Amino acid sequence: MKNSLFRKDIVTVESLTTEDVELIFEKTREMERLVKEKGGDDRLKGKIMAALFYEPSTRTFSSFIAAMQKLGGGIIPLNGMKNTSVEKGESFKHTIQVFSRYADCLVVRHPEPGMPAMAAGYVDMPVINAGDGINEHPTQALFDTYTIHKHFAGLDNLKVALVGDLKNGRTVHSLSQVLAKMGKNLFFHFVSPAVLKMPEEIKKIIKSSGTNFSETDNLSSVISESDVIYMTRVQKERFTDITEYERLKSFYMLEKKMLNNAKKRVIIMHPLPIAAGEISNDLDTDLRSVYLKEQLSNGLYLRMALLDLILRR
Amino acid sequence: MKNSLFRKDIVTVESLTTEDVELIFEKTREMERLVKEKGGDDRLKGKIMAALFYEPSTRTFSSFIAAMQKLGGGIIPLNGMKNTSVEKGESFKHTIQVFSRYADCLVVRHPEPGMPAMAAGYVDMPVINAGDGINEHPTQALFDTYTIHKHFAGLDNLKVALVGDLKNGRTVHSLSQVLAKMGKNLFFHFVSPAVLKMPEEIKKIIKSSGTNFSETDNLSSVISESDVIYMTRVQKERFTDITEYERLKSFYMLEKKMLNNAKKRVIIMHPLPIAAGEISNDLDTDLRSVYLKEQLSNGLYLRMALLDLILRR
Amino acid sequence: MKNSLFRKDIVTVESLTTEDVELIFEKTREMERLVKEKGGDDRLKGKIMAALFYEPSTRTFSSFIAAMQKLGGGIIPLNGMKNTSVEKGESFKHTIQVFSRYADCLVVRHPEPGMPAMAAGYVDMPVINAGDGINEHPTQALFDTYTIHKHFAGLDNLKVALVGDLKNGRTVHSLSQVLAKMGKNLFFHFVSPAVLKMPEEIKKIIKSSGTNFSETDNLSSVISESDVIYMTRVQKERFTDITEYERLKSFYMLEKKMLNNAKKRVIIMHPLPIAAGEISNDLDTDLRSVYLKEQLSNGLYLRMALLDLILRR
Repeated sequence: MKNSLFRKDIVTVESLTTEDVELIFEKTREMERLVKEKGGDDRLKGKIMAALFYEPSTRTFSSFIAAMQKLGGGIIPLNGMKNTSVEKGESFKHTIQVFSRYADCLVVRHPEPGMPAMAAGYVDMPVINAGDGINEHPTQALFDTYTIHKHFAGLDNLKVALVGDLKNGRTVHSLSQVLAKMGKNLFFHFVSPAVLKMPEEIKKIIKSSGTNFSETDNLSSVISESDVIYMTRVQKERFTDITEYERLKSFYMLEKKMLNNAKKRVIIMHPLPIAAGEISNDLDTDLRSVYLKEQLSNGLYLRMALLDLILRR
Repeated sequence: MKNSLFRKDIVTVESLTTEDVELIFEKTREMERLVKEKGGDDRLKGKIMAALFYEPSTRTFSSFIAAMQKLGGGIIPLNGMKNTSVEKGESFKHTIQVFSRYADCLVVRHPEPGMPAMAAGYVDMPVINAGDGINEHPTQALFDTYTIHKHFAGLDNLKVALVGDLKNGRTVHSLSQVLAKMGKNLFFHFVSPAVLKMPEEIKKIIKSSGTNFSETDNLSSVISESDVIYMTRVQKERFTDITEYERLKSFYMLEKKMLNNAKKRVIIMHPLPIAAGEISNDLDTDLRSVYLKEQLSNGLYLRMALLDLILRR
Repeated sequence: MKNSLFRKDIVTVESLTTEDVELIFEKTREMERLVKEKGGDDRLKGKIMAALFYEPSTRTFSSFIAAMQKLGGGIIPLNGMKNTSVEKGESFKHTIQVFSRYADCLVVRHPEPGMPAMAAGYVDMPVINAGDGINEHPTQALFDTYTIHKHFAGLDNLKVALVGDLKNGRTVHSLSQVLAKMGKNLFFHFVSPAVLKMPEEIKKIIKSSGTNFSETDNLSSVISESDVIYMTRVQKERFTDITEYERLKSFYMLEKKMLNNAKKRVIIMHPLPIAAGEISNDLDTDLRSVYLKEQLSNGLYLRMALLDLILRR
């Protein structure tokens, strides 16, 4: 397959074609085999990935730097870069341009929507969006989609429940778009409290791709007919009113007994961390749960795949 | 020699057999030759070590990440991870499980005793204890023992003075156990202020291995008959009463002139840092001092050896 | 060419001979070719560089760790090490000696002049000065000189304007010495406010090398006859009186229109970051500006060159 992603940015899921996503999935399978057979190799020897995280992260950050090193590449690991007003605007531009001279690709996380895309515009070098505020988290969306695709050997005709903070959760914004793009006759249950509903813009994109959805605040009502139950945490850092956060954080709590009428092949997903008991502990070891298992491993494989694709012709 | 440590945890010294320790020492000698002849190699290419330090460290942390990279492996270097009450219990478990999906082994330091062992129970992957509060510091104990073993071409019949904070010093807890296990007719002088004596549990283990010891608060009285004088700092971070710390921190101060009657082949050791002048500066360059020299180099070689053993069949 | 720099320290520019600098430039050209053709290689496999930055840095730090990894070496990346009074003196010595046992070379930045040179005296291992307070920044000086040398195919007969905080700017202290040493019939315009003039010691060194200079506080007056305009920021962190800083920070602001009468081949340089508009944004993309382009890339190549020279015979 021709590598259409060589030197390309991965900043929005919208910009990826279905062929791009298929290419990424194919390469992800190759990476899984590589890791299981040899641990890794040195195909990215001499290449440097700068991880510029303006919002601290443990999981995503570690996953990216592990992925790069498993392919023999080097890292500039900057977790928790300062984001003062002085550094915004022109100065952010300079910082990005500086790193484009030291590294071969940039992985940018930023609390403000659009900054990774802006970064991509500043430099002649591939930029990966590792999460930009409430906007997007394309790599998470890609490996979540990959996880579902692998489990069900495809995406067609699935019913996917996205549960929790659908307003501020960048993960579900990106995920719903990728699923809608890739799956035929896929259906969403958007499950959230009224004040945390999926934004209109996202719903418009979903609809325009021909995918149907329902909206409800009742989790129990959708469990029995869902193939995927994707739980999310309420995003504390997006609230200005802390009492409002306290009221909403435990709005949904998925427990084992609630799955009595669930489909046999249902899978439980979560982007982690589980912040306020939105999935009860007894589900951690349940065979239907993938959030501490394949979902994470697939994240590593998929990020290896992306780095390989954007850095090697 | 068969590699009995492949995929094994190194969380307590108690769990290591004498054969395990001999295997580690043999591999450590191999690593020393490798470093001196070639600097390192890439036998751990594609493997990732996650260094999860819940208690900040400079020396141990740096030693581990250098060791891993000298063998061609990659690192997830997390020094000073947060240890809030929220992160304890289930959430610590999740964190450990997450990293087990990104890395091939975990090196865990934690201010609370038992947490690395707990981590090892959560995952199907080798875990190394890099120090857990006042409890253990097995890798330090191993390379300290290696250092003594190498200097005296064995451990039998040695007299070892352990000096300072024997109550809170995890290093001496682990070291005394390894020495007692490995040396025949070895003898300890436990030298400490009354309130900082070696804990009863440790003394019981020592005794049960057939090793004898004396206890005293008088350093001078044991110098002339000791083969090894192992100084330690008083552990400020373990005190709740700071005035008590101030009173005890300089209880022992080893000076060159105190060694006039020492044995010819005596060696002076210290796990570093020297915090309150417990060894005077004039001893730094003394030929009998190994704490800024072989003791550290052996730490690097031994950690390389451990990583090689647990990660390669 | 014989490698005269093998295992040598790079702590002051004064200690480098013209042959040393020529060797560095030759190796830098080799590194540029290597990066452009293959990205990097693994000639420093098994070697470790400890980056001990007692003063936090983003650019220099990242440039060094990228350089080391592009040649296959490993890193101990310690950015923002603590510099408490306790850690000074003997304890700084111990820290340096400890790292000399884990690493194959040390890169030291420190807010106090002379500390990297002191570090070099403590250990039998190459030490690179990555900036010591207001004193020196030899690697920056070297790649700045390289950048000028490359642009003009030599350094002879050039007129170089150094502009801004010439009192506290370690970069210009080092740069002016290297240029004076390497160029025949080179001339400096030292352009600064009266209170931020080039120190007498530096001027003495420049003079003794047979290089002439003028001093002025008027930037406009020197533009038309300069081949290089090297702008610098006013060093906020060196001021005790903040109002004095505020008065001086924007003393010079280079704008495109000021370059109307400039020489055709003039280049605009800056060590970054641009802190207070001392170069206007419209110059960022100007073809005469090299500060966000070659100047940075050359920094990477030159640091690769230095690491290769000091670590391989």
